[in-house]
Amino acid sequence: MSFLRNAWYVAGWSGDLGTAPRRIRVLGEWIALFRLADGTAAAIGDRCPHRFASLGDGKLVGDSLQCPYHGLRFDRDGRCVHNPHGDGSVPAGSGVRSYPLVERHGALWIWTGEPGRADPAAIPDFARFDDPALAVSRGYLKVTAPYELVTDNLLDLSHAAFLHPFLASPDAADRTRTGVRQEGNTVWSQLWIEREPVTPLFRLVWDHPDDQAEMRSHMRWTAPSSLYLDVGMTPDGIDPDDSPALPSAHLLTPETEGSTHYFWMVGRNRGQADAAIGERIHAGIARAFAEEDEPMIARVAENMDGADFWSLRPMILAGDAAAVRARRILAQMIRAEGATPATPDATRIPAIEGTQHGHHRN
Amino acid sequence: MSFLRNAWYVAGWSGDLGTAPRRIRVLGEWIALFRLADGTAAAIGDRCPHRFASLGDGKLVGDSLQCPYHGLRFDRDGRCVHNPHGDGSVPAGSGVRSYPLVERHGALWIWTGEPGRADPAAIPDFARFDDPALAVSRGYLKVTAPYELVTDNLLDLSHAAFLHPFLASPDAADRTRTGVRQEGNTVWSQLWIEREPVTPLFRLVWDHPDDQAEMRSHMRWTAPSSLYLDVGMTPDGIDPDDSPALPSAHLLTPETEGSTHYFWMVGRNRGQADAAIGERIHAGIARAFAEEDEPMIARVAENMDGADFWSLRPMILAGDAAAVRARRILAQMIRAEGATPATPDATRIPAIEGTQHGHHRN
Amino acid sequence: MSFLRNAWYVAGWSGDLGTAPRRIRVLGEWIALFRLADGTAAAIGDRCPHRFASLGDGKLVGDSLQCPYHGLRFDRDGRCVHNPHGDGSVPAGSGVRSYPLVERHGALWIWTGEPGRADPAAIPDFARFDDPALAVSRGYLKVTAPYELVTDNLLDLSHAAFLHPFLASPDAADRTRTGVRQEGNTVWSQLWIEREPVTPLFRLVWDHPDDQAEMRSHMRWTAPSSLYLDVGMTPDGIDPDDSPALPSAHLLTPETEGSTHYFWMVGRNRGQADAAIGERIHAGIARAFAEEDEPMIARVAENMDGADFWSLRPMILAGDAAAVRARRILAQMIRAEGATPATPDATRIPAIEGTQHGHHRN
Ligand code: FES
Ligand code: FES
Ligand code: FES
Repeated sequence: MSFLRNAWYVAGWSGDLGTAPRRIRVLGEWIALFRLADGTAAAIGDRCPHRFASLGDGKLVGDSLQCPYHGLRFDRDGRCVHNPHGDGSVPAGSGVRSYPLVERHGALWIWTGEPGRADPAAIPDFARFDDPALAVSRGYLKVTAPYELVTDNLLDLSHAAFLHPFLASPDAADRTRTGVRQEGNTVWSQLWIEREPVTPLFRLVWDHPDDQAEMRSHMRWTAPSSLYLDVGMTPDGIDPDDSPALPSAHLLTPETEGSTHYFWMVGRNRGQADAAIGERIHAGIARAFAEEDEPMIARVAENMDGADFWSLRPMILAGDAAAVRARRILAQMIRAEGATPATPDATRIPAIEGTQHGHHRN
Repeated sequence: MSFLRNAWYVAGWSGDLGTAPRRIRVLGEWIALFRLADGTAAAIGDRCPHRFASLGDGKLVGDSLQCPYHGLRFDRDGRCVHNPHGDGSVPAGSGVRSYPLVERHGALWIWTGEPGRADPAAIPDFARFDDPALAVSRGYLKVTAPYELVTDNLLDLSHAAFLHPFLASPDAADRTRTGVRQEGNTVWSQLWIEREPVTPLFRLVWDHPDDQAEMRSHMRWTAPSSLYLDVGMTPDGIDPDDSPALPSAHLLTPETEGSTHYFWMVGRNRGQADAAIGERIHAGIARAFAEEDEPMIARVAENMDGADFWSLRPMILAGDAAAVRARRILAQMIRAEGATPATPDATRIPAIEGTQHGHHRN
Repeated sequence: MSFLRNAWYVAGWSGDLGTAPRRIRVLGEWIALFRLADGTAAAIGDRCPHRFASLGDGKLVGDSLQCPYHGLRFDRDGRCVHNPHGDGSVPAGSGVRSYPLVERHGALWIWTGEPGRADPAAIPDFARFDDPALAVSRGYLKVTAPYELVTDNLLDLSHAAFLHPFLASPDAADRTRTGVRQEGNTVWSQLWIEREPVTPLFRLVWDHPDDQAEMRSHMRWTAPSSLYLDVGMTPDGIDPDDSPALPSAHLLTPETEGSTHYFWMVGRNRGQADAAIGERIHAGIARAFAEEDEPMIARVAENMDGADFWSLRPMILAGDAAAVRARRILAQMIRAEGATPATPDATRIPAIEGTQHGHHRN
């Protein structure tokens, strides 16, 4: 397995990064996150080049991050800008890598590839969650499995009938139609379920006399691992746009080859001002992810025991079409990336080009 | 190290497999255990061929096991017999391996080798525990050590004097005679201890005025790892067959190369109807195994640190004769098996030969 | 990484080895420690040559250590001197390695190299802690990091200003002068801090009206990993020898390549009879080591992820001079040792030369 490096990944929710720095592992690399005095978020390599302490465990001094071990300070570009010891000089070329970082849709998007290719326009569109007509709740889950298995899970929602009593009816498979759509490198996995009894989740926002409706559940995948779910239940004779909808985002960031940061958010177009409804939706979804999906996906990873997915000759069912397409697109993108000149290696190449002259403390 | 594959191993106690399926790892392979509607026990490969969920975590639907992830169903032969999605067709050759399984002496015996060679007559004889004159109690322990080290422990019971105050006197070594007997591939390790004070274990069933007796402790080993212990204390002038006896079975199933399922049962020919006596015998033995044997054997495994037993040049004492014979017989059997055509590999060769035509849901 | 084998390492505090044997891992090898009837401490290989149980889990019988599994007994030279089974004979050459052991300065010093080269005169000098004018307290900490990283920590005490509010002022770097001295294979790392406010640690023993003083903090390193810290605060116009001093020893013993036994002791030349002061000094230092140094050093080890120190091209600051010298001296000593005939290998070569004749129990 390998990662797509020239891509935007979510490194955290904006609201979770305050004045205290944080550290997070992304694509196997530890990254320090912090905010400048004016609130701008920044991301630099976590490992201090002096004695390898974690900058993300340090503290902010003005606009720079101070190493917790011997106090060197680094700016948002990863440059060492202060040495408190001796004559205060800083050896030329001292620094760590810095990562392009953009705040959007309430998330911190980090670019793990070549800095020069980081284009914020390539961040997948989740503008729906910026719409004030929607109340949004955000969550996080660590999944002990490769991110591809989480993508598989999300692109085949037929599992909901078997795994998630809160989200689907056990006999939904009998009333389900599926479809797959591909637009460039975007894949849609679509489910329509006829005469679906209002699910326990939708009951929390239900305001129509019918107790069943047409359910749509359309998952959009954008490479490498950002997913958007348009889910709604539409009673007979009602416009889908006016019906209850609970769209969600599923933002997967590989932590290592065997573990995944799963950032999710869910919006509601009913009871937006009712905090209790928001909490019940959040709790129900969080429980389904943490107690039903995560153990299942972790078990699958355990059962695969590190083997390559295709080498295990998975049985392919109709519902797998979208997941298979996504896997193929991603594999192709990763291969293409491998063919281009190598991306910078944080370990060997200091982020700072050229020579920085030693400077003195004042 | 390697395993003898063409052999019967205990995969569980009959009484522990009810209507809920279970999963157990045997010789490194995960196996799903379940019962058909009529109670017949069955064993099939645990890993669903679709997306690799665990069938043993699923549920029974009629005579088949339903995968907990997307609902495929498998019968006792490992065939996929139901696909709830789309047109319900099942790709040809879809299935998992199935394992011959026999219920006998209260245990589920599984055959891990070539199915065609599975002969129930080869299950070692533990008929003594079917005798209604004996009350039997069953237990289980996971041992963090290769099964060979548990066999070593059991074939040299001279350790009881040093490790198990409940089972032997600390000075028993001075009064002990030993013997080894081999009958084909069966090895007996025999101890006779003269003037042994009635042990705390035997005191629970003691009904004779003497407070010491001749103790016999005869362990029978059948390859690969089924052991039977005929243990009794015979007061002077009494027929051994009429004396208190607490025979036990020690059924070792390799879980992985470094861990062992230890199924044990103990019978008593005194106080059979007295549940309190049964509980005290069970508790005393369970404690000796869990708190004295297991930590010792696990420590030995740790001290060996993965090295081959013989490469460490173990010092050989008189009491090791039986264990050494058993090791030699087993090594020879494993070598012989390696020379025959390979056993089926659950990962690569589907259990289902020929072509199964897709079928439709009704 | 590798270890210097021909060296003295601390295997424990004298006061912690009573009548119960102990086991400790040193340089990757498990060692059993015990005391003879007259109190003499002894160290032999922990792994019983019979079935590989741990002798350090056994019990003392007279002057020998009895294996907890089948009762073989070993003397201080590692010779098997008693077999309780059969005719009691002991196969020739049966035994384990024995290690030279010396008790000095309250510690058990073990020699891990060639026994013939063990010279007690080579034990580093910590006689200051034997001086009755000093009250001494001893502690222990397991560090999850290679011992070299603990040495680095100790030889660059400039980190105290950033990591240890109990031990230094946060702005101490501005008032610090440093020096390095080398005498043969001994390295001194010296810090002088002007106008240092009396630290919380020194406040516990402070008896002078001034609330600041010149602080000296001189760390002596002796290969491979014994460190002595001469630390004191001297008010203006007072003789340093009459000023409050809290000298300490930092005795590092590699447990494995990735973990370190950290034995430390601290003396005080004030309030020697006041147990409460002793306890507060002990608690404050123990907390700084366990809650500030250990997590930092463990994090550094984690961030290095097994890579060679120099391969990571550490940035070198003025304060690193001593640590870098120590690393170079040690690397040279380890290389030199590798060029000499190999040290005995406990696993393959029995410690007992020649042939020991079987003997009988009486
Ligand atoms: S490790 Fe960061 S300043 Fe020393
Ligand atoms: S993993 Fe078993 S049905 Fe999908
Ligand atoms: S293992 Fe030590 S006597 Fe058997």
